[in-house]
Amino acid sequence: MADLARRFAENPLVRPGDVRPSREGLDVQLTLNPGVFRWQGKVYLLMRVAERPKQVEGFVSTIVTDPDAEGGVRILRFRLDDPGLDLTDPRIINYQGTTYLSSISHLRLAWSQDGVHFQVADKPTLVGTGPLESYGVEDARVTEMEGTFYITYTAVSENGIGVGLITTTDWQAFHRHGMILPPTNKDTALFPERVGGMYVAFHRPIGVWLGGPYIWLSRSPDLLHWGDHACLARTIPNSWEEQRLGAGGPPIRTPEGWLEIYHAANFEHRYCLGALLLDLDDPSQVLARSKEPIMEPTAAYERQGFFGEVVFSNGHVVDRDQITVYYGASDEIICGATLSIREILDSLGM
Amino acid sequence: MADLARRFAENPLVRPGDVRPSREGLDVQLTLNPGVFRWQGKVYLLMRVAERPKQVEGFVSTIVTDPDAEGGVRILRFRLDDPGLDLTDPRIINYQGTTYLSSISHLRLAWSQDGVHFQVADKPTLVGTGPLESYGVEDARVTEMEGTFYITYTAVSENGIGVGLITTTDWQAFHRHGMILPPTNKDTALFPERVGGMYVAFHRPIGVWLGGPYIWLSRSPDLLHWGDHACLARTIPNSWEEQRLGAGGPPIRTPEGWLEIYHAANFEHRYCLGALLLDLDDPSQVLARSKEPIMEPTAAYERQGFFGEVVFSNGHVVDRDQITVYYGASDEIICGATLSIREILDSLGM
Repeated sequence: MADLARRFAENPLVRPGDVRPSREGLDVQLTLNPGVFRWQGKVYLLMRVAERPKQVEGFVSTIVTDPDAEGGVRILRFRLDDPGLDLTDPRIINYQGTTYLSSISHLRLAWSQDGVHFQVADKPTLVGTGPLESYGVEDARVTEMEGTFYITYTAVSENGIGVGLITTTDWQAFHRHGMILPPTNKDTALFPERVGGMYVAFHRPIGVWLGGPYIWLSRSPDLLHWGDHACLARTIPNSWEEQRLGAGGPPIRTPEGWLEIYHAANFEHRYCLGALLLDLDDPSQVLARSKEPIMEPTAAYERQGFFGEVVFSNGHVVDRDQITVYYGASDEIICGATLSIREILDSLGM
Repeated sequence: MADLARRFAENPLVRPGDVRPSREGLDVQLTLNPGVFRWQGKVYLLMRVAERPKQVEGFVSTIVTDPDAEGGVRILRFRLDDPGLDLTDPRIINYQGTTYLSSISHLRLAWSQDGVHFQVADKPTLVGTGPLESYGVEDARVTEMEGTFYITYTAVSENGIGVGLITTTDWQAFHRHGMILPPTNKDTALFPERVGGMYVAFHRPIGVWLGGPYIWLSRSPDLLHWGDHACLARTIPNSWEEQRLGAGGPPIRTPEGWLEIYHAANFEHRYCLGALLLDLDDPSQVLARSKEPIMEPTAAYERQGFFGEVVFSNGHVVDRDQITVYYGASDEIICGATLSIREILDSLGM
């Protein structure tokens, strides 16, 4: 079993029960996939918190934001015995051909002195706003450059799934920069510095008809407008990464190249982590790529849960050789593990 | 029948038989969907020309570019009796779950003194280049600003379908600016001037899972990098535009607003043209939209052909009130028709 991760004995670090609902009548269903950063001596998680209405027997209920509705939200309720209802995938409610999410996500901070024991904010930090986020915001990546934190996240609505950008310097005042990558896109992580004078990002469009859910690289003069798109890594038939793949957190500069921990899934929706090594001066050049995963769902809490057989990381902190990844396990809880940069590079043959 | 178009008696204006193949062994199968511009007193079409290998009995053959192959192209041939072959859609070859185009397209100029009788260039003007265009280039839009022609086109490869940008001032030297919008995207038309200091474009991403093939609007400081994406027009259930829609050529400035002729299809893949009117100062504001098509496939050559029941325009010239649209009919031939701006605005209730 190829697995270079040393899991925390304290896992899970954050569970749905640790989080206060954002409003009366909602349950916190999932805590997962945090963006991670260091600030003022602490480790911070910008977690995805998924909520749904308290469920009523015989029905399934979900929630969307709606500025015209009372309280700004609308509850949707479907009879479980309605033949038009399809709940095959626990993440979505399909009703008569229309897709709704089974929950709505916001982003919420948690912080820790030791990186293991976390205190969770009482309230959401960022919630979906406007017509491109009516189904919520998900899976933030956080990159700090020169004192500003850049938050790239998945904006979800009936218009599609794209990538939004929010910046802050103090985690109190936030500046919204709109959608920076149009549908269908997610898994966008910014490089922590300019390369050749340009900002660089990973992203994950979906090729329909041709192509697929591949990792792409793009460049920007200002972080708001993106171009020079290039395909960086594709799925590999008959492998652990045959179905989809996407970037994790910001890449890590090493003497050998930019090291990126990414996720990939097979056709059974088993999500593992792998590594990419990219040229320091031209990160569109892939120097090495994992043949086997560097982390797989092996612990019981990674194998069973809301959506089992999933490890998914989009944030980490680095101390010399040690990467501490914070990750969603079974799409339900937040866990931690450490990886050695040297061991990852060795696994890549570097 | 809602149809405001006056078709040219001379239609079709360009047919596949009018075009010399780009190389030995290929047949020109389709001529369609031209970008249109005026230059040096003539009307120019930048046509899409689709070619495929001369077909051999018992087989279907297609072609892709491949820098490692002799002559830079590779011929793919499939036995017609192979059970893994699916030719249901004439535009694609599906073999054992992998999709190929049934032809490869390049862009080629044609020109005319009177806008009706066209002379076709002997050779391709622009061909697919590099890993993002190995399946060709399609459906160009041409916008002139300050003496530079901006060509936005569909770049097709096994990596996906995205939007490329090429510029020229003399139609001899071309500058390639790479992919400006990542997969899955097409139908990108630039506004002919900046609005509020920014360049503006229509584009047509595909929302997967949520959203759909809708018209979006984006802004750019430099035409190379795009952001501030907003959804402009969605499909409308149980209508002529229930399945997909996308922008046509560059929008036309009128005193009432930006007038855009767009295409849309129903679930039977019947493609019609409609009109959108957008606020002059903030084109993300839709002032009016066609309830019924302004042009429908009604002529015999629009109803029958390679892909019947299609009128599709991505280019036009304007003389005061008169728009001359050049359009692909049945995805096979290029035709012309005139429309009155006043009549379109009247149909929008303006």
